Amino acid sequence: MTYKALREMSTLTLALFSALICCSLTEKPSNVTSPNIIIMLMDDMGWGDLGVLGQPSKETPNLGAMASQGMLLPNFYTANPLCSPSRASLLTGRLPVRNGFYTTNAHARNAYTPQEIVGGISDDEILLPEMLRKNGYVSKIVGKWHLGHRPQYLPLKRGFDEWFGAPNCHFGPYNDNKAPNIPVYNNSEMVGRYYEEFMIDRKTGESNLTLIYLREALDYIVRQSESERPFFLYWAPDATHAPVYASKRFLGKSQRGRYGDAVMELDYSVGQILAQLKGSGVEKNTFVFFTSDNGAALISAPDQGGSNGPFLCGKQTTFEGGMREPAIAWWPGRIKEGTVSFQLANVMDLFTTSLALAGIRPPDNRTLDGLDLTPVLLKGYVGPQTLQNRPIFYYRGNELMAVRLGQYKAHYWTWSNSWKEFNSGINFCPGQEIPGVTTHEQKEHTMQPLIFHLGRDPGEKYPISVSTKEYQDVLSRITPVVQLHKKTLVPGYPQLNMCDVAVMNWAPAGCEKLGKCLKVPKSDPRKCDWPH
Amino acid sequence: MTYKALREMSTLTLALFSALICCSLTEKPSNVTSPNIIIMLMDDMGWGDLGVLGQPSKETPNLGAMASQGMLLPNFYTANPLCSPSRASLLTGRLPVRNGFYTTNAHARNAYTPQEIVGGISDDEILLPEMLRKNGYVSKIVGKWHLGHRPQYLPLKRGFDEWFGAPNCHFGPYNDNKAPNIPVYNNSEMVGRYYEEFMIDRKTGESNLTLIYLREALDYIVRQSESERPFFLYWAPDATHAPVYASKRFLGKSQRGRYGDAVMELDYSVGQILAQLKGSGVEKNTFVFFTSDNGAALISAPDQGGSNGPFLCGKQTTFEGGMREPAIAWWPGRIKEGTVSFQLANVMDLFTTSLALAGIRPPDNRTLDGLDLTPVLLKGYVGPQTLQNRPIFYYRGNELMAVRLGQYKAHYWTWSNSWKEFNSGINFCPGQEIPGVTTHEQKEHTMQPLIFHLGRDPGEKYPISVSTKEYQDVLSRITPVVQLHKKTLVPGYPQLNMCDVAVMNWAPAGCEKLGKCLKVPKSDPRKCDWPH
Repeated sequence: MTYKALREMSTLTLALFSALICCSLTEKPSNVTSPNIIIMLMDDMGWGDLGVLGQPSKETPNLGAMASQGMLLPNFYTANPLCSPSRASLLTGRLPVRNGFYTTNAHARNAYTPQEIVGGISDDEILLPEMLRKNGYVSKIVGKWHLGHRPQYLPLKRGFDEWFGAPNCHFGPYNDNKAPNIPVYNNSEMVGRYYEEFMIDRKTGESNLTLIYLREALDYIVRQSESERPFFLYWAPDATHAPVYASKRFLGKSQRGRYGDAVMELDYSVGQILAQLKGSGVEKNTFVFFTSDNGAALISAPDQGGSNGPFLCGKQTTFEGGMREPAIAWWPGRIKEGTVSFQLANVMDLFTTSLALAGIRPPDNRTLDGLDLTPVLLKGYVGPQTLQNRPIFYYRGNELMAVRLGQYKAHYWTWSNSWKEFNSGINFCPGQEIPGVTTHEQKEHTMQPLIFHLGRDPGEKYPISVSTKEYQDVLSRITPVVQLHKKTLVPGYPQLNMCDVAVMNWAPAGCEKLGKCLKVPKSDPRKCDWPH
Repeated sequence: MTYKALREMSTLTLALFSALICCSLTEKPSNVTSPNIIIMLMDDMGWGDLGVLGQPSKETPNLGAMASQGMLLPNFYTANPLCSPSRASLLTGRLPVRNGFYTTNAHARNAYTPQEIVGGISDDEILLPEMLRKNGYVSKIVGKWHLGHRPQYLPLKRGFDEWFGAPNCHFGPYNDNKAPNIPVYNNSEMVGRYYEEFMIDRKTGESNLTLIYLREALDYIVRQSESERPFFLYWAPDATHAPVYASKRFLGKSQRGRYGDAVMELDYSVGQILAQLKGSGVEKNTFVFFTSDNGAALISAPDQGGSNGPFLCGKQTTFEGGMREPAIAWWPGRIKEGTVSFQLANVMDLFTTSLALAGIRPPDNRTLDGLDLTPVLLKGYVGPQTLQNRPIFYYRGNELMAVRLGQYKAHYWTWSNSWKEFNSGINFCPGQEIPGVTTHEQKEHTMQPLIFHLGRDPGEKYPISVSTKEYQDVLSRITPVVQLHKKTLVPGYPQLNMCDVAVMNWAPAGCEKLGKCLKVPKSDPRKCDWPH
């Protein structure tokens, strides 16, 4: 036997041995080509907050490097201009109106999962980590969950193997009588509460939570890189959601104030995570996607809100500022570096795309709104028609407010918020006012939608005149798309209608060990009030 | 004699011989280390029109490459939110209020050089090409001049050796009775007129003028690269000024409509020019600077106006949208690639910086507003204090409207335009309205300026409360800067007060040869009307 033949045999033996190890660890045969998947979802970060997307202070060098090593998608959307429905859509691949993350308490209202919410993500929904598990993936969520905080809704009940983070927004500090502080969980038990064990100094903005979330991510990557099983990491830090916070190391460092400090720390953390993938030698087998849950919260600007760049309004609205998100895909060797794709895409595509990457057939017993973006990402492919010409639907609650098809966006309903709210100082479009567009009553345009060309007019300032051929041509193309969508839509059961003080985080699992259980008040179910 | 000694002697002989050649060609001994200088000045292009500065369609790959090979300056300003004064400032290194490019006909009005203007750049001013000539430079302007169209004001009278372009904006087409079409000059004689020999199809937007301006630039670079003398090229195409135009090859190519087509052609041309520098082997001896004369003309948007990104309002105003400009410096091997400098800088610095690069002492018998940026450009140096903490002055006509110092901007006067104009549909801030800021009367804030932090609030939406310590601290730092500026300011004689139909381009030099002389009407001097 020659030396070469010996070496080949030895390689073969090793491969067989590896295969045996692999299959003994997972329920199903692992597809060793399935890449690891990391979705980095920011909180209330706007399209215009990235240097590579025009933030004048240019303080996101790591995201800039990520884009120059990967693909930038300037036409990427969320499914809803609010945290919870957006996150539910990411993990289900379905519009909120299908997966139940909406309200019917009033027309066209945004709803989410505050502590009083009774509902959460329905058992009828299949979540991304539940699907990935079928092909041997291990899944972890780090950060904000927001799909319901009652025990049956928590991440470890819904496909995740690990969790470090909180079920709700980091609002507070609360008085223990009227509301408990939000718990922070390590897997299935709380390990403390915000403003107690996990400090956020609302005055200075200091908190080491992003640092903790970074460490959780790095630790998980190191551990899983040594495993034979592919991993999914859903990294969802919330430092850019008011109250905005940053570690001491970053406070005061930005030209943009506290909000910029938080962005700088997140940018740094993204850099650390990508570096760890390289350090662990798994970067060529890891797909990473960076985006945000909704547009910047202009209501919190300038100190605690970000920028939506040239787009109109922000969070809570179905204008571009509320729905268009920063988006970068990264996978060295697979996604061509320094590319830009103008594909219309959205957060629900991450569900379908992740399944495609993992080699898993998507569920066939439900309507999915997400498409498989792998032809775009891996082959720079802008067809087939279903991808290139796919519509983007803009919902507020259960109302289809607008539709984008190609460069055109048709608004069927417009409103920012009510006169009552607006006159009390709540403004989702500060400094912006487009007569007949940023209206303070719910204005219906169903019979004659407002149509904008987002290429010429990304700021939605100049409705195309109804009397033009362009308007009529566009309308004749968009109308059947809307009709088909409405005709075939089967709304899910609305999960965000009922609230009750008794369901708040008074006594989460693990509270006994910490001596941090609070008295649960008497149940008082009522319809939640969703003012906008 | 050794071989080494022989070689050294031969080198010495060659150097002496070169020196003789050099000095026989120029009036003064040429400094062979003086680089070529190219200033690319766009017309009405906005900060937000570059992909690298956040334009969502990302259609400027050549400018992106220029920035990644050079330095991006996100805090670069013009000297005035209108074409003529901005261009006069670039070539004199002085504020319009000093060089005479302003009006005293009314308070705080923008003025420029339409065909009826009697004045032009004063003989008392020293222009950049006049200075560069002292050190042997050859200078050419390609494109728009705009410093006065009467014979005594034209480029070849003011230091340029060559010119291909027009003295005024490409407005038209005109009826020969009321107004002549604008002439296009080749050096000191007209070679045709816009809408006649040099077509601009206002309906389709087709014109090959950018292509002609590109060829003029490339031809000049090729010729001068073979010369011993350093060259200056002032490349000033005007395709992004309404009426916006592009060549057939680019029409319909942009996602942004006709304006985007024009931008794409200019971006392509920038790429061609940089490639020619490399092709001619002079890229390591050529300093190139790209910028624009003022903010995007939102009055012409969306079809024929650009984007000022996240900034407030546009051309004609002293808000950031009117004054902040895209800016890229490029010099392979000398300017570090892929850098960003936050230095506050402006178009007048190009005068002083060019002189420094050319090894010429700036004139010492006048106040210069431009600073030498070479420490910033070549050494990434952000000191000394005079550079880092230098103020930016925002003028409208003869009024100091605002001052920027560090991240803070104090408005002493605000207005966009009059109610009368605004109510007739002229809007410099479409879709934007900040109560008390984008005012329609001239509002004085001298005793208590409106102060913004441009890092936290680039859109000038949130004036800092007067009652804060921050406001008082900033005011106490800005006040002496403003006082010193006002105290020492000696305004130049205003050149833009008088208009006369008789001075229009009826019979420019060279018209006889072409049979294109028109009858000069009777002189009727009057004060120009500057409505905003």
